[in-house]
Amino acid sequence: MAETEPSRSARRARSGGGAARRAARSATGVETARFITRNIPDFDLFSSEALELIEHNAETVLEEIGVVFSENPAALTRWREAGADVRGERVRLPRGLARKLCATAPASFIQHARNPERSVGIGGRSLVLAPVYGPPFVRDSAGGRRYATMEDFRKFVRLGYMSKWLHHSGGTVCEPTDIPVNKRHLDMLMAHMTLSDKPFMGAVTEPSRARDSVAMCEILFGRDFVAGNAVMTSLININSPLTFDSTMMGALEVYARANQACIVSPFIVGGAMAPVSVTGTLTQVLAEALAGIAYSQLVRPGAPVIFGAFVSSIDMNSGAPTFGTPEASQILYGAGQLARRLRVPFRSGGGLCGSKLPDAQAAYETANTLNAALMGGVNFMLHACGWLEGGLVASIEKFVMDADQLGALHKMAAGVALDEAAQAMDALREVGPGGHFLGCAHTQAHFREAYWRSDLLDYKAFETWDEEGARDTMVLARDRAAKMLAQYQPPPLDAAIHESLNDYATRRKAELDVSA
Amino acid sequence: MAETEPSRSARRARSGGGAARRAARSATGVETARFITRNIPDFDLFSSEALELIEHNAETVLEEIGVVFSENPAALTRWREAGADVRGERVRLPRGLARKLCATAPASFIQHARNPERSVGIGGRSLVLAPVYGPPFVRDSAGGRRYATMEDFRKFVRLGYMSKWLHHSGGTVCEPTDIPVNKRHLDMLMAHMTLSDKPFMGAVTEPSRARDSVAMCEILFGRDFVAGNAVMTSLININSPLTFDSTMMGALEVYARANQACIVSPFIVGGAMAPVSVTGTLTQVLAEALAGIAYSQLVRPGAPVIFGAFVSSIDMNSGAPTFGTPEASQILYGAGQLARRLRVPFRSGGGLCGSKLPDAQAAYETANTLNAALMGGVNFMLHACGWLEGGLVASIEKFVMDADQLGALHKMAAGVALDEAAQAMDALREVGPGGHFLGCAHTQAHFREAYWRSDLLDYKAFETWDEEGARDTMVLARDRAAKMLAQYQPPPLDAAIHESLNDYATRRKAELDVSA
Repeated sequence: MAETEPSRSARRARSGGGAARRAARSATGVETARFITRNIPDFDLFSSEALELIEHNAETVLEEIGVVFSENPAALTRWREAGADVRGERVRLPRGLARKLCATAPASFIQHARNPERSVGIGGRSLVLAPVYGPPFVRDSAGGRRYATMEDFRKFVRLGYMSKWLHHSGGTVCEPTDIPVNKRHLDMLMAHMTLSDKPFMGAVTEPSRARDSVAMCEILFGRDFVAGNAVMTSLININSPLTFDSTMMGALEVYARANQACIVSPFIVGGAMAPVSVTGTLTQVLAEALAGIAYSQLVRPGAPVIFGAFVSSIDMNSGAPTFGTPEASQILYGAGQLARRLRVPFRSGGGLCGSKLPDAQAAYETANTLNAALMGGVNFMLHACGWLEGGLVASIEKFVMDADQLGALHKMAAGVALDEAAQAMDALREVGPGGHFLGCAHTQAHFREAYWRSDLLDYKAFETWDEEGARDTMVLARDRAAKMLAQYQPPPLDAAIHESLNDYATRRKAELDVSA
Repeated sequence: MAETEPSRSARRARSGGGAARRAARSATGVETARFITRNIPDFDLFSSEALELIEHNAETVLEEIGVVFSENPAALTRWREAGADVRGERVRLPRGLARKLCATAPASFIQHARNPERSVGIGGRSLVLAPVYGPPFVRDSAGGRRYATMEDFRKFVRLGYMSKWLHHSGGTVCEPTDIPVNKRHLDMLMAHMTLSDKPFMGAVTEPSRARDSVAMCEILFGRDFVAGNAVMTSLININSPLTFDSTMMGALEVYARANQACIVSPFIVGGAMAPVSVTGTLTQVLAEALAGIAYSQLVRPGAPVIFGAFVSSIDMNSGAPTFGTPEASQILYGAGQLARRLRVPFRSGGGLCGSKLPDAQAAYETANTLNAALMGGVNFMLHACGWLEGGLVASIEKFVMDADQLGALHKMAAGVALDEAAQAMDALREVGPGGHFLGCAHTQAHFREAYWRSDLLDYKAFETWDEEGARDTMVLARDRAAKMLAQYQPPPLDAAIHESLNDYATRRKAELDVSA
């Protein structure tokens, strides 16, 4: 039978050496699936000729129009030395230069977690799932929609830790708006480092905050380990169209120098920040990713970097970004193919939706995006769960609902077994015409692992479901989230490390108070 | 820019000759998209080697285990004469016989509608969307869950007629349980023939009811037309595993002899009616489809027929069929590849779900299935909208919700334009780094048709949405269904034909009263 990733992972934890067994008992309080390794083909929507056309046009954009690196003289110097045509802040790249520079970027890399069982491979056939990033609001069925707080943030980190199919703790799972902007990152990092043992993301809102992220990782992982290994994957958005601002680039420079991974990601509402066409948008996405990835390699050749594409379509009636649409999927498929041709890991997708509630709209749009991301070869999926209302809201219920659906991606990605047991000729012979398979030997031997099963959704008989209160998915998710949070126990962490992290955060907060 | 099917269809209606214009004015009360012609590749999950293995095993099933044609001596005679090994009701087919017989089945055919604009092509790169089939219950937010009546049936036919992205009126959109079983089909056919002008399905619950269906079509289309053209596509379920009962086969015989199309479809809850493995289930599906399609060609070589695969997975805890699961998608992809290798049209997919309500569960499961059906090369999609609770319930709200999502399939299937306008190099040059595209000439020229837009889902700003009552998708769909039904006007029908149909139904009901 096809073997699901989690069962493989669980078995490894069980059957490993003494150290692995101890790690499984102590650090691994809850089961987490291993990151997905696809055993299925990618869906190639675009022909080679179409991709070559887009690549040609992207080079034309870089050569004729160029990109802007704003308020960043050091970047302009790097570009000039690399052979670019720099006038003012505008950088024009001769054909082929960006692609040549990208060649030193690794095709895949490992992002280490403090629990080695939970380290993830990014690139190649992998798919790593990380939660929603960035919402200033939270919503749950008890409290409705409100500004997010640090306690909300911790709640999402705990839920992520408890979510079997989520590989990554993420970054800004919501904006803790009750903490001053200049100190937020310290509390967020503390939460990821102490409340979870899954990999996480660093701060990007200022170079100094990226430096804090590296410093705290050096406490958590050890200075030597951080120097030689990626322990953070951080999100560097490009200011589309074609602009790289000094804040984001400053953070990228810190991370690249420290050999930490960045996602270089155009952030595009189609028709507003890119042309109102799929092919035109892909051209711009490629030009921006090429320039951004090339720049990371100018800072440090070999620094791990991910080709990002966050693109929504737009409702031209309301101006609202729209999600789960065919055009968003087309762009995802195309960007994935372009990233693979560039031989760098690819980030896109997620549980994206525009709905205000975790209702049917949210689920249609989310499922459309999750399916495209699986088939489109995404390696790192940010926003895989909890995203609501175009990213303005992190939803407790949707976090749990989406995280459950992520299980289906694992099973789908595992492909189909073809061995003798899977062929089931013995079962067909045993049962014959008109019989039934429920009791046959093959079914008894294989039914447990044969089919993916939701841990959340309703499979009950109508009468039972009705008697139990006729609960819809939102209510089921509310109850499940409450149960997960009640059962949550933090993964063990060395007390000295915990204290050092606390000391660092306290000291930095005091310094920031003085400088403010 | 990519041109969507509906706009193409609308333009044909507008720009055709005088007759087409009159037809568009008179018969076409509401806009309906042309059936989908895929301009994108299929997703081939299985390798050629895997498919050959399954084909080999299916032949082994037919040769060694065989199939049962129960209570059908004429079928046994046909098989014997064709070279099969018939013992009792068991028919064993020498390797290759079924596939050889299938060769006379057309690779594609047209099912004609009484409004020629709405005829559909089935096979090749086409995708035809038809509504839910078979539920004994209906649900809407006003009346909850209850047994379906003939008035419910008419409501669904009207909604189907008003649904822009639905190409087909379907068959038993719900079971009108207030009409005796032996007369139901007459009222159902009347509804499809008079309340809609889209193509429809015939009765299959008895050979005599199939004969009634043909007779009423001869009134509607003319006897000569029916003799030479497919005007019905009817659903013949196989009694899996490997059993073909005389009721369904009797109906198939009537339709095949009349040159009308049948879907020959295994109906499988995996693990109960087939082995608990994807590969084993596919083996059985292929064996059953081969035998059923071959039999249709024994009745009449060249009769139009569709390779069906309706397969759900099962929750081994509750025994409930489950939908939108990875295994269901894997089987859909595999069956599609097998059908294409057999060069016959393929039926699968739909808006399948197990949820009791049109909530997030329903939408996740539905979207998973719709996406797989689009990518898996389905030609005829029954249950494309309105399916709820594992097919026990036809839902008014879900009908409207799913029918809206079907629009996205049209846009996705159209593929991506690569022409000069789509490349948008002028827009990229005009806007440049840091600008925005909303006002540029390219956007102004193309924004109207650039992005698919839901006619149902919420794209409003949070504050507007909140002020307007914070409606979820179910409420939006309830309101939209009410509006569609209020605006409904039946398509014109020649009064003499209408009267003849009425006379036929009245006469047959009287005969059935006497015989009962």
